[in-house]
Amino acid sequence: MSRMIGIQEVDDIALGAAVLGTGGGGDPYIGKLMAQQSIREHGPVELVSVDEVPDDEWSVSIAMMGAPTVMVEKMPGGDECVQAFNAVQSYLGKPIKYIYSIEAGGINSTIPITLAARLRMPLIDLDGMGRAFPEIQMVTHNLFGITATPFTMADEKGNSAVLATIDNRWMETFARSIAVNMGATAHIACYASSGAQQKEAAVHGTMSLAETIGKAIREARAAHTNPIEAIQRVTNGFVIFHGKLTDVQRRTVAGFARGEALLEGIGADAGSIMKIQFQNENLMAEKDGTIIASVPDLITMVEEDTGEPITTEQLRYGFRVMVLGMPCHRHWRTEAALKVVGPRYFGYETDYVPVEQRFS
Amino acid sequence: MSRMIGIQEVDDIALGAAVLGTGGGGDPYIGKLMAQQSIREHGPVELVSVDEVPDDEWSVSIAMMGAPTVMVEKMPGGDECVQAFNAVQSYLGKPIKYIYSIEAGGINSTIPITLAARLRMPLIDLDGMGRAFPEIQMVTHNLFGITATPFTMADEKGNSAVLATIDNRWMETFARSIAVNMGATAHIACYASSGAQQKEAAVHGTMSLAETIGKAIREARAAHTNPIEAIQRVTNGFVIFHGKLTDVQRRTVAGFARGEALLEGIGADAGSIMKIQFQNENLMAEKDGTIIASVPDLITMVEEDTGEPITTEQLRYGFRVMVLGMPCHRHWRTEAALKVVGPRYFGYETDYVPVEQRFS
Repeated sequence: MSRMIGIQEVDDIALGAAVLGTGGGGDPYIGKLMAQQSIREHGPVELVSVDEVPDDEWSVSIAMMGAPTVMVEKMPGGDECVQAFNAVQSYLGKPIKYIYSIEAGGINSTIPITLAARLRMPLIDLDGMGRAFPEIQMVTHNLFGITATPFTMADEKGNSAVLATIDNRWMETFARSIAVNMGATAHIACYASSGAQQKEAAVHGTMSLAETIGKAIREARAAHTNPIEAIQRVTNGFVIFHGKLTDVQRRTVAGFARGEALLEGIGADAGSIMKIQFQNENLMAEKDGTIIASVPDLITMVEEDTGEPITTEQLRYGFRVMVLGMPCHRHWRTEAALKVVGPRYFGYETDYVPVEQRFS
Repeated sequence: MSRMIGIQEVDDIALGAAVLGTGGGGDPYIGKLMAQQSIREHGPVELVSVDEVPDDEWSVSIAMMGAPTVMVEKMPGGDECVQAFNAVQSYLGKPIKYIYSIEAGGINSTIPITLAARLRMPLIDLDGMGRAFPEIQMVTHNLFGITATPFTMADEKGNSAVLATIDNRWMETFARSIAVNMGATAHIACYASSGAQQKEAAVHGTMSLAETIGKAIREARAAHTNPIEAIQRVTNGFVIFHGKLTDVQRRTVAGFARGEALLEGIGADAGSIMKIQFQNENLMAEKDGTIIASVPDLITMVEEDTGEPITTEQLRYGFRVMVLGMPCHRHWRTEAALKVVGPRYFGYETDYVPVEQRFS
């Protein structure tokens, strides 16, 4: 059933998507303000379930790509999104009637809302990851043979590119270098998909899930109950560490924010150390030298009292956090999918073990 | 007056263009074979003078971009050119009726002939440099405000890109990184221009000049007269050094072949040393530590007996060469043009002095 997304829903979606964003996906605050402003100007956005999308109608994802560390410095306008959208439509030569979000994460969950409001188009309740990932080919659509081509890019200066590649890994290579040249961040439109393709390949219900998470946190805060327990209930997640941030190494290289965070255990984890490595998103969590959670499962740090998710670019010495481990979508757990997003792709010589096997 | 370009004309054009190519523009041998094969298959190509092109008819340049050191390893097919051409036409939304060469230089003088034969389109007797230069914005059209957009690229694997930028220096940045990702070399189409624009902005008669140079060398060889004197007569050039190659430093970096060649003087230059620095093309010639020729004037090494031009990737220890300095086109000698192609752009803290002022 379709329903309308207004100011309050955007608040909840932005908050919940940042939990799913595993530290990446850009700053949720900027994205939220943009989406709410667009809704004030153009009215609420219709959110439709994938079942309501006819098999032969087309949708496209709209996002920002690049280093989140830089995105916070470059407050995005809205015209670049429209330009990227129009370029895909023009390349395809057929009308696109729906917008969708490529990933759950701060800015990339709300930019599609911004564009849907401006173009008065419905948003589909799904995404391409069920979380955030750093690279272009790390989209469930890719696992089902859907091409990212035409991949369109635009920057705030007025430069643009339309890329067509023989596979989605090549797209990552080409688009990343353009994004770096666009100033480490770019507006993109990609993975145009038919309704039939969305039914098979997407992660369904992600926008609603984000909203449910955000609402659960908000209500727990209002009721003075534990917001982190509220997140766990909705995501089937586990608290895998409780600690204080003692060191953050972060560098913007090759269009990514890469680095690691060190946490000193408190409470039940006193005496232990956790190391979290990230590439835009949190990839690996090691406790006292042993991996206890890894991609493609979700690893998110939330502030211990408020449950506020912390993005990799917000990490600061002294933060007291709970580290959550949450199971990823089943699409990511096949052997083929693990080649695309498993620990070994990111250079870690270890096998993936589902988080619930370690913590149930 | 239009005339037909056949097998013999391609021989002469390829040879003469390599003299104008100042060491760059790719291997003339591969380009010649490709163009001659296309002419055998599709018939001769019509060469028209710019005056014969209606003001409102469109033309586009076709070329290869990247490091010539890599081009020789990747024998180009012809389909990538056609793809790049079609992409420009599709972006512009109007028919393109003429092909032209963006630069004089081995492969980039003959690739347009190959495509013109395949598409049965006329080639215009002009180019965008009157020589070869390494970067996208170093085209006389750029000096007259003509945009390289839409700039289309294709590789032999099937990847492609369409770039639109706010100026032609940005295009160099974007296109170079894509070319690097395409394997250090790419097929491009760019600088679509109307007949009126070509009349104002291009270097006219370049294809004929190349042919005249090539023919002069060929006839001198046949008559056992001096082919280097024949080149000088046609180009108003000077022999600025006579020497033997003693060292070549060459590295493929950032999509360019960069390096320097050292020559030990022989004959009248015995006891002297010449250093020639290049970035795909020869940029600066220093004799005993003093600059005696520089961009934008042409610096070309030719084999001392045959007058055969030597590209930067062919340079080998022991070659005995004459170094020629030839005046560039007047478009390159304005203050604005020297900012684009003068010594200081390439990082040399020296002013440009026209070669004829030093040697007349």
